[in-house]
Amino acid sequence: MQKTFELLATDRHSKARRGRLTSAHGEIDTPAFMPVGTQGSVKGVSPRELRELHAQIVLGNTYHLFVRPGVDVIKCFGGLHNFMNWNGPILTDSGGYQIFSLAKLRKITEEGVEFQNHIDGARAFISPEIAMEIQMLLGSDITMALDECVPYPCEYDYAAQSAEMTTRWAKRCWERNRQNGETAKRGFADSMLFGIVQGAMFEDLRKESAQAIVDLDFDGYAIGGVSVGEPEEEMMRAVEWTEPVLPVNKPRYTMGLGTPPQLLELIARGMDMFDCVLPTRLARNGTAFTATGTVNLKNAEFTLDKNPIEKNCVCDACREFSRGYIRHLIKAEEILGLRLITLHNLHFYLNLMNQAGAEIEKGTFDQFRKAFVAQYKTREAVTVE
Amino acid sequence: MQKTFELLATDRHSKARRGRLTSAHGEIDTPAFMPVGTQGSVKGVSPRELRELHAQIVLGNTYHLFVRPGVDVIKCFGGLHNFMNWNGPILTDSGGYQIFSLAKLRKITEEGVEFQNHIDGARAFISPEIAMEIQMLLGSDITMALDECVPYPCEYDYAAQSAEMTTRWAKRCWERNRQNGETAKRGFADSMLFGIVQGAMFEDLRKESAQAIVDLDFDGYAIGGVSVGEPEEEMMRAVEWTEPVLPVNKPRYTMGLGTPPQLLELIARGMDMFDCVLPTRLARNGTAFTATGTVNLKNAEFTLDKNPIEKNCVCDACREFSRGYIRHLIKAEEILGLRLITLHNLHFYLNLMNQAGAEIEKGTFDQFRKAFVAQYKTREAVTVE
Repeated sequence: MQKTFELLATDRHSKARRGRLTSAHGEIDTPAFMPVGTQGSVKGVSPRELRELHAQIVLGNTYHLFVRPGVDVIKCFGGLHNFMNWNGPILTDSGGYQIFSLAKLRKITEEGVEFQNHIDGARAFISPEIAMEIQMLLGSDITMALDECVPYPCEYDYAAQSAEMTTRWAKRCWERNRQNGETAKRGFADSMLFGIVQGAMFEDLRKESAQAIVDLDFDGYAIGGVSVGEPEEEMMRAVEWTEPVLPVNKPRYTMGLGTPPQLLELIARGMDMFDCVLPTRLARNGTAFTATGTVNLKNAEFTLDKNPIEKNCVCDACREFSRGYIRHLIKAEEILGLRLITLHNLHFYLNLMNQAGAEIEKGTFDQFRKAFVAQYKTREAVTVE
Repeated sequence: MQKTFELLATDRHSKARRGRLTSAHGEIDTPAFMPVGTQGSVKGVSPRELRELHAQIVLGNTYHLFVRPGVDVIKCFGGLHNFMNWNGPILTDSGGYQIFSLAKLRKITEEGVEFQNHIDGARAFISPEIAMEIQMLLGSDITMALDECVPYPCEYDYAAQSAEMTTRWAKRCWERNRQNGETAKRGFADSMLFGIVQGAMFEDLRKESAQAIVDLDFDGYAIGGVSVGEPEEEMMRAVEWTEPVLPVNKPRYTMGLGTPPQLLELIARGMDMFDCVLPTRLARNGTAFTATGTVNLKNAEFTLDKNPIEKNCVCDACREFSRGYIRHLIKAEEILGLRLITLHNLHFYLNLMNQAGAEIEKGTFDQFRKAFVAQYKTREAVTVE
């Protein structure tokens, strides 16, 4: 069983790190962006296209898969890898975030969380132990501990109590993970388990949560409770408070982030792994990422534009199609339009991580980050969800 | 300039023919199925995927492209081939059928047809000459004469007058085509022009229309006014009345047809070219074609089905994914689901034409057709539109 994290290079001017995480289904070079395959499919693209994009890992949402098609179905197919025909690494979240953001009639107790799903309203209950069981059945390479993700803004007392409960849940996940490893349940011994730090936007709570989670000794650490509507400065502060507590020899994952400049800023703050729906979600609205910011290809200015989405971009969409044609496809609601922008946007994110890693190795990450952020102007308001 | 039709083999037991049509953008083996790229894109698939499917020709809808993005836009990109990045042959219809089926407030006169488009209601006028100009600007390899497609059922007197006007329109298209050829307007000299036979469901009108159109000497002949809601027997009769009038050394195209058994029956009746939205449209509803009929993958029976859509099928969808996974994708409204079924359905149609051609060459088409039709059961009602 291979589950190691190797630190290959660190930046002299920032906390940026170049690393390599080895999972049962292959290596992940960090900094890494994980395309989001919520329902067992990265929206608009095929597993073959993900491989051609050099995506090294895909994220699956436990809540969505639990609700539909159901864990029993995926188990019958031998796990999520087989089901979706993706033989690279898969990270699954615990389901917590979506229960808190999508499900109805949530009732949180020490034991776990009861809810009605958003598809057919069926009642269900997920505890830390059940979250581990589900992720084991999915065959995830990187599993996440169940946490409570509190809303923004959040009262101090609630945030404190919630973070403490998240720690107790993390301990139960850790324990179940250990038991499963001992009884050698199929596939589970090969998976990694990441703990999640909470604590809302309070420095002492973030540090306490981080220390308590680190004390449990997970395979990696995630910062949760960010990207919940807070201003970017508060998000960065939450990361800056947490990072010094995290061990250097384990991967760090900031959940649900972010824009391209945010990713570089988070890398500079010592973060290694990211997931975000922006590249796929904005593509469906006609918005493409470029080095100078986002452009909405629906705009009339692109009607006769024979240029690719981005000059010198080597993605299939840019090598084969013009802005004008893609604009037409989006206006005419042709599926190929969102497919092409999705391909480009995923390439943009994945390539940005590759570049960042190479710059860290070269010792030039700081200049690269500053130049990229200075050139990148968010032309349109984008919401990270 | 190459624009030839070569008859390579004929069946002894039926009128089935194996041929090869040479266009400015390449050869088309007949019998040929033409995937429908209504708005400059075959719904759900990329030009690269069309090439991988061995599609030899794509159909574009003049009416749709005229309305959006507009002919001027496509002209600016150097024609439809460049615009959509498809370097194979393109056939465009004249726009007539869609004006009669989609546009509002149509006013048909001898001069042409005035209408309001279905997108923004803008008024426009298309005459036979304008239809030829538009198709020239699109850069079509095979252009179609403007015709009036009468509804089903249709009064004899109206059908007779309409077919006569369609003949006069065909003559005007032929004349404009000749003039354009002489003045060597860019690209136009390389295109072929097909005439369209009308005459509704009346034997004498069909024969008169066919003879009048044949007398004009087109590069190929289409049978229009079928697939407009008539029973299959009437459709087959309209083809049977028309076929003997058509010259053997020119390709014959039945417009807007049909189901897989219908295609084989039409091949047996001497038809060479087909276009139909069924494989792409039904895919979006979760319906896949198989040798034993259509199956709707939404059905619960496929939830745990690890088989491909069709055993032994070599399409990418069948080589890589299970019915159970595709069912999940369709139920979850994931785009990949309709992409995979579209790929399979197009492969099914294109492969059926390949098989039919090979069987004609071997002299075994008749057995092949009978065996296929006997095995194929339409499990669900399908509507050809």
